[in-house]
Amino acid sequence: MTEQLDHLFEYFGKDIIDIAIQRVATIPIEVPSWGFGRGGTRFGAYKVGTEPVTPGEKIAAAGQFHKLTGKGSTIALHFPWDGKNKTEVRKLKKPLKQAGIAAGSINANLFSIREKGPLTDTIRFGSLTHPHEKVRDASVKHCIDCLDYMRLLGSNTFVLWLPDGTNSPGQMSMYEQSERLEDALLQVSEALVENETMLIEYKIFEPGFYSTAIQDYGRSLYLSWLAGDNAKVLVDLGHHPHGVNVEQIIAQVVRQGKLGGFHFNDSYYADDDLATGSLHPHQLFRIFVNLIEGEMRGYVPVHELAFMIDQSHNIKDPFEELIESVENIETAYVKAMLVDYHGLEGARAAPDPTPADRILMDAFNTDVRPILYESRRNHGLPLDPLSTWRETS
Amino acid sequence: MTEQLDHLFEYFGKDIIDIAIQRVATIPIEVPSWGFGRGGTRFGAYKVGTEPVTPGEKIAAAGQFHKLTGKGSTIALHFPWDGKNKTEVRKLKKPLKQAGIAAGSINANLFSIREKGPLTDTIRFGSLTHPHEKVRDASVKHCIDCLDYMRLLGSNTFVLWLPDGTNSPGQMSMYEQSERLEDALLQVSEALVENETMLIEYKIFEPGFYSTAIQDYGRSLYLSWLAGDNAKVLVDLGHHPHGVNVEQIIAQVVRQGKLGGFHFNDSYYADDDLATGSLHPHQLFRIFVNLIEGEMRGYVPVHELAFMIDQSHNIKDPFEELIESVENIETAYVKAMLVDYHGLEGARAAPDPTPADRILMDAFNTDVRPILYESRRNHGLPLDPLSTWRETS
Amino acid sequence: MTEQLDHLFEYFGKDIIDIAIQRVATIPIEVPSWGFGRGGTRFGAYKVGTEPVTPGEKIAAAGQFHKLTGKGSTIALHFPWDGKNKTEVRKLKKPLKQAGIAAGSINANLFSIREKGPLTDTIRFGSLTHPHEKVRDASVKHCIDCLDYMRLLGSNTFVLWLPDGTNSPGQMSMYEQSERLEDALLQVSEALVENETMLIEYKIFEPGFYSTAIQDYGRSLYLSWLAGDNAKVLVDLGHHPHGVNVEQIIAQVVRQGKLGGFHFNDSYYADDDLATGSLHPHQLFRIFVNLIEGEMRGYVPVHELAFMIDQSHNIKDPFEELIESVENIETAYVKAMLVDYHGLEGARAAPDPTPADRILMDAFNTDVRPILYESRRNHGLPLDPLSTWRETS
Amino acid sequence: MTEQLDHLFEYFGKDIIDIAIQRVATIPIEVPSWGFGRGGTRFGAYKVGTEPVTPGEKIAAAGQFHKLTGKGSTIALHFPWDGKNKTEVRKLKKPLKQAGIAAGSINANLFSIREKGPLTDTIRFGSLTHPHEKVRDASVKHCIDCLDYMRLLGSNTFVLWLPDGTNSPGQMSMYEQSERLEDALLQVSEALVENETMLIEYKIFEPGFYSTAIQDYGRSLYLSWLAGDNAKVLVDLGHHPHGVNVEQIIAQVVRQGKLGGFHFNDSYYADDDLATGSLHPHQLFRIFVNLIEGEMRGYVPVHELAFMIDQSHNIKDPFEELIESVENIETAYVKAMLVDYHGLEGARAAPDPTPADRILMDAFNTDVRPILYESRRNHGLPLDPLSTWRETS
Repeated sequence: MTEQLDHLFEYFGKDIIDIAIQRVATIPIEVPSWGFGRGGTRFGAYKVGTEPVTPGEKIAAAGQFHKLTGKGSTIALHFPWDGKNKTEVRKLKKPLKQAGIAAGSINANLFSIREKGPLTDTIRFGSLTHPHEKVRDASVKHCIDCLDYMRLLGSNTFVLWLPDGTNSPGQMSMYEQSERLEDALLQVSEALVENETMLIEYKIFEPGFYSTAIQDYGRSLYLSWLAGDNAKVLVDLGHHPHGVNVEQIIAQVVRQGKLGGFHFNDSYYADDDLATGSLHPHQLFRIFVNLIEGEMRGYVPVHELAFMIDQSHNIKDPFEELIESVENIETAYVKAMLVDYHGLEGARAAPDPTPADRILMDAFNTDVRPILYESRRNHGLPLDPLSTWRETS
Repeated sequence: MTEQLDHLFEYFGKDIIDIAIQRVATIPIEVPSWGFGRGGTRFGAYKVGTEPVTPGEKIAAAGQFHKLTGKGSTIALHFPWDGKNKTEVRKLKKPLKQAGIAAGSINANLFSIREKGPLTDTIRFGSLTHPHEKVRDASVKHCIDCLDYMRLLGSNTFVLWLPDGTNSPGQMSMYEQSERLEDALLQVSEALVENETMLIEYKIFEPGFYSTAIQDYGRSLYLSWLAGDNAKVLVDLGHHPHGVNVEQIIAQVVRQGKLGGFHFNDSYYADDDLATGSLHPHQLFRIFVNLIEGEMRGYVPVHELAFMIDQSHNIKDPFEELIESVENIETAYVKAMLVDYHGLEGARAAPDPTPADRILMDAFNTDVRPILYESRRNHGLPLDPLSTWRETS
Repeated sequence: MTEQLDHLFEYFGKDIIDIAIQRVATIPIEVPSWGFGRGGTRFGAYKVGTEPVTPGEKIAAAGQFHKLTGKGSTIALHFPWDGKNKTEVRKLKKPLKQAGIAAGSINANLFSIREKGPLTDTIRFGSLTHPHEKVRDASVKHCIDCLDYMRLLGSNTFVLWLPDGTNSPGQMSMYEQSERLEDALLQVSEALVENETMLIEYKIFEPGFYSTAIQDYGRSLYLSWLAGDNAKVLVDLGHHPHGVNVEQIIAQVVRQGKLGGFHFNDSYYADDDLATGSLHPHQLFRIFVNLIEGEMRGYVPVHELAFMIDQSHNIKDPFEELIESVENIETAYVKAMLVDYHGLEGARAAPDPTPADRILMDAFNTDVRPILYESRRNHGLPLDPLSTWRETS
Repeated sequence: MTEQLDHLFEYFGKDIIDIAIQRVATIPIEVPSWGFGRGGTRFGAYKVGTEPVTPGEKIAAAGQFHKLTGKGSTIALHFPWDGKNKTEVRKLKKPLKQAGIAAGSINANLFSIREKGPLTDTIRFGSLTHPHEKVRDASVKHCIDCLDYMRLLGSNTFVLWLPDGTNSPGQMSMYEQSERLEDALLQVSEALVENETMLIEYKIFEPGFYSTAIQDYGRSLYLSWLAGDNAKVLVDLGHHPHGVNVEQIIAQVVRQGKLGGFHFNDSYYADDDLATGSLHPHQLFRIFVNLIEGEMRGYVPVHELAFMIDQSHNIKDPFEELIESVENIETAYVKAMLVDYHGLEGARAAPDPTPADRILMDAFNTDVRPILYESRRNHGLPLDPLSTWRETS
């Protein structure tokens, strides 16, 4: 393995490889509490019985995950799933501390029926865009409660994914949908203080099958301008129509200072929530190339973005599929760091696209596992987290 | 209203209109037991509380539906949802009789975990294509049990929709997936006797997000050849990739004598299961044009096909959305009957496409509600089922 | 036919029908000079020989079209196709006057190789985003020349459709693509004066097959903010990924005061440029419903938008397919005017989506041809333009 | 580099690597005569001037290509582009001999207007499915002429890609479209003799924008059964709707003994005809995994399939983009050979999908360039064909 690393030193230069070794170790990748549980489809969720169930169990699993992979130093939490009130939220602190991790992004669940109150009855008609003011108000309040939970847990990132949408053209005026959303969103954003961020997620469809209230990045971007400097765009890789060039969107949003972060997963058809990079590793590579290029041009540093895994582990073991996903993300990131950006810039200026594409493919075709191993060795992590996990769990 | 009908008599000829009045009344449209319940997504199902729950309540609802609309003289049933064994299935006869309807297509549920036995443990890996022989055998047995239920209830139509698929390329060999499916399917088809039909449904994705075992009509068609004369293709309007010309597939499968029937619904993005004809009424019209043209050319008579509604009523009231859907289907069918097929044939032979398309649009743009009303009046049905339902329920 | 109209008076109210008769006559629908010619694909264009070739012939055809349909009072022009310099452009005035029509939107062709100069050599690498400054400058200059042509011909609408894009990730930095485009666009927008409009068109792909410089409405919207009040978004119905809800985008852009107009056509797969409303008449109806709702809410009046047909007449006779398209647009618009917006508002507020959708479908299912005929009769137009054209040409 | 190869020997076993070195050298990859020319879109083709124009020039270029890459030992030819009659076709023999290559697949051009005769007038309405019998007959005749050319040039592979389709539902009956196609195709297939193959290509759209006559693999498969043992399915990677799992289709068609070969390219949106493997290298890898698995199961040996590149080189230099494509194909093929199929089988049988996917990714993440270099070295080829080409041309 040392020979393999020496080869990379020689080929790419020791400086480049050393930076890659260091940066891949420090890029923050967040895992979600719900991701340790078994995912499902509308046809059912097939629980095996070994999945963690309580918030405490999920946090403990995340702690193990962090020890094994070095990633997941923060965990995304979902409310009320992970706590129904301040008392319950406060109780998360102890397991977090025991697990050696911190609370990451705070996600407001706006689609689950509450046991009591206005969110109970007609939540299928929406939350922040519901025709009834009392439901909109209760939904805003839940978001603001989540901001409290965020502060209570020492986090500063709030994620808004909105289940609102419609299933037919008669159901709601597109004008009212927009207006209600903007009104509600501004109430939430006004509750933010400095250094707090609200990430606004978009999604082309599901659970709305005729419209969704925040359907694409264009809408998220507009809302994030309305909402001010605290608001940014969240890109979930599986939330686009077929054929959308995601890395182009990313570069454009980075340029406008509005990219906040990612929900990572992979998809073949729709919001499939498969293991990140498992089917489209070259797309993931291109995304990181665009992020690095953005950093080099003076836009947001890569490591200041929020990288969160958001997958649905329906078939594979959730813990293991998260390990797989982290390795795919690390691989794509390291490959993107090996790109000869200087050569690329020259070929593009010419323009001479054949060598430009070759420069990219040269990095992509490199076996970067020696870099991953070295990085893990430097941090006392197992070289092969999956095997270690299987041997020890 | 009489004047409106007179106008149609005059414009299209009384013969044509009389046939339309008669045929729209007699085209069989089946409703599903599960369709009277509240549908949902993976994010939840929002039950209102008024939905029928037990098989008996669903059958009673279907009886009311039949009285109001004249459609739904048969009801699709799903096992084990509607009965777990022969005793329970036998008990359906009484409510069916009371409701004045008959059992229609019999659907095998192969995705729900059974309480006991080999289907319990690892059903997420498949049913007829499961890596373990005992699960495949148990799945075949459930299908054959369903054939028994079918005979017990006096039906002759078995519908196979297979939830099997994979979420990653490593999970299963595409060769083994095909082989297991064909082996299992032949065991089922060999259990069929004359005049019994197995309809083989296909679906591009969900719940499998990398592959589904029967992914498209080409696969259904091949399987229906393997399985013999009793096997036919079932087209669900929402089970295709974007951009597939569904009416072309229909004509080709009709020509090959292999079209068995439809699961009707509408979709914007994926298998959205919205109200049939609510977003793409022109597509529904084109489908009926192709069916009628097939009948005129000596292929399968339209009324011998199985027309089944298969929707997920997540937002609207299920009973009402079924009425809406039936009306959209009737509308499309009547419009397709008004097409001047003789003129169309001439324009196509020329070829002279502008008048050919105009002939189609001439029928599509006609207001056919006078025909629907006359047809309902002739059969003692309320002219406006939705209003009558609201007034009386 | 009078009885049919009386029926509509009675059903919808005479006021509504009278307004529809009047408004459908006055909604401006522009036809393009190039649309009278034979379209083609990359596999060839199959000219019959009867198509007009010179700008003068196309303008004469447009004049005939206007006399027959009442639409096409302005004609979209494309430069340098319709004129290479001011002298040639000036010569268009006479045929326009003879044809009884005016110049409409002015379109800059940025994809054709010029005979001489910097646009000759490497135009495949782009125009406003070309890596070479001299090509970008020449492209800006061509746009500004087009503004001169616009003023010279008495028009005030400039349409920018950009062929720029890339075929591989190496070819161009997404950052430079954005930056160059914004720099160039601002040079063009600064050349605009009051009451002049630049419409910025977007397109998901083609001729770029990895990226296009203005890929979606989100990008057009952003550019139109940068460029100021004179800049607006142009929606071409065939320029979206599969599954995008176009009418939702329209409502959102209308709300933001940034919708400029449309390129009308229909599509099944991509930018197919088929006859408007020929496959998705319900979508066209929904679009007009959203436009009317926007006007009723105090946003842009429908008739102040630019409605332009932009199709590729590969198979049918171009002149005839334009007639077909106009009739489909008129039909959709009239149906949208028949919607009971007051009832719809109530049902939406409840929320009670089943009757809300029924209100829409009630209008859509109405045969509005009596309204079209009455409108044509009032303006001395042939009741059936296609038949009249066939009889007289 | 030797150390890199030693590492692979050690990791995968010398046997596996030696086989990979040998097989990647001998897999036949065909290049098309038209691929050396500049491609274009409906907006134009931007010729640089250095592209070969005459058939002789294209063949000479293919000879150079073969010398550099070892691939392209056969060249696909297109008639009448590469010859209008037997005399002209016969004249291709000399340049082929001089270039050291042979004629490969013979492609019938059915979309270009001929100078004289029945194909002249209305070819936009179709060839083998044209409403007029004389056009259908002339089209069949052209196919049979192409069989003559095939024999004359010593090839045994005929490729049928059909431009036929429609742009509206009125234009043609879907029944007549099918019937005419089958009649015509049988005339062509009956003219084939033993050891001759007709490959039937399918395509979801373009140039037909409402239907294409052979729209998907299901249709190709059916036609190939009708046409008999000489007929097989040709898969063009860019001819599917979004979201179709191409490798699954491939496995199914292989299992049925009907896969004939490929047209290789890559695509993001539609039939983009980009460099193979440039955007979806993992898909290309998965395809080769399925082919190898098929060979291991006793189906068609990989090297007996026809691998043809079919791209449109609009931006990059055609010759160079072909080199890039060949390298991407070689890379994917070698990676697929490194898969631990034995381990994969075990993990799938368990089922244990996480290690199964890891086995695939382990091969994919390997840098296989040492194998490519060794293979080239063994055959006296330049290690880096692109650099050699740039230095010497």
